Amino acid sequence: MTAPADLVLGIDPGTARTGFGLVQHTSSGGVQLVAYGVIETEAGQPMGDRLLRLETELLALLDQHHPTSAGVEKLYFDRNVSTAMTVGQARGIVLLTLARHSIPVQEYTPQEVKQAVAGYGGADKKQMQAMVRLLLEMDHEPRPDDAADALAVAICHAHASRTHQRLQEAG
Amino acid sequence: MTAPADLVLGIDPGTARTGFGLVQHTSSGGVQLVAYGVIETEAGQPMGDRLLRLETELLALLDQHHPTSAGVEKLYFDRNVSTAMTVGQARGIVLLTLARHSIPVQEYTPQEVKQAVAGYGGADKKQMQAMVRLLLEMDHEPRPDDAADALAVAICHAHASRTHQRLQEAG
Repeated sequence: MTAPADLVLGIDPGTARTGFGLVQHTSSGGVQLVAYGVIETEAGQPMGDRLLRLETELLALLDQHHPTSAGVEKLYFDRNVSTAMTVGQARGIVLLTLARHSIPVQEYTPQEVKQAVAGYGGADKKQMQAMVRLLLEMDHEPRPDDAADALAVAICHAHASRTHQRLQEAG
Repeated sequence: MTAPADLVLGIDPGTARTGFGLVQHTSSGGVQLVAYGVIETEAGQPMGDRLLRLETELLALLDQHHPTSAGVEKLYFDRNVSTAMTVGQARGIVLLTLARHSIPVQEYTPQEVKQAVAGYGGADKKQMQAMVRLLLEMDHEPRPDDAADALAVAICHAHASRTHQRLQEAG
């Protein structure tokens, strides 16, 4: 039995840089890389214009790839209030845009993402990037960090949705 | 010389409740109340759907009143990271929607808002609401809190834009 070719989007939101990663289930039970990168906005611009830019680029990404579902990290507990506010602004645009396109979104804690990708919740950034590279059979580690983080979320979400699907099939 | 009838929107963003207040310059140099209230979203709904709802209601407000500019509070220093993240999400939708309608936005710290409305930066919530009521000649204090906060931001922005305008005229 072959799993459907679900295309999974992972997002690491930020106003300066939003990372994205797209992965697909393989018939052998793994995941394969489809695309990854970052959406950047200009630092000097008013925040509203930067958020408009983020929305436009994200829309272009959805139009190009048509992901079937998306994963977003739940919260950055280690950041300060000011950073949380600006990350929240970008996150709002991402959730709004995905909801507008009826793309289901699942949220994951950083620990859940690390658990899914590296096998344990205490993995550091270097270990995570090495694992993302291995799992997606990339010839180098994904760069920049935001894109690597987004790929990790995508892998986590791909695993979680496959598990969910198998449980439903078994039940 | 009469100031143009600038309609000023003040916003206090939140995912559960976004307060709004609309005030207008009077020819005598004061400000008068046009409208105020809150946009509420349903707690049980997915965040993306709540943000879509906020966007829809805000759009209806802009279509009805056509504000010429808007004021938003800069940051809530006294809140925690989790609150800052969710406030940021709502704030992102507000800034995006205003930018899409080319409505210029000015940001003010809570201290600036208190200074403009109550005359000093240390005013408490009760004093602020009493001053909003006085300045806008309301027969009761504005409720709920989020709407009162939004009216305070609108008054602050109305004062700041008038000052700015006068300085330009003098220059």
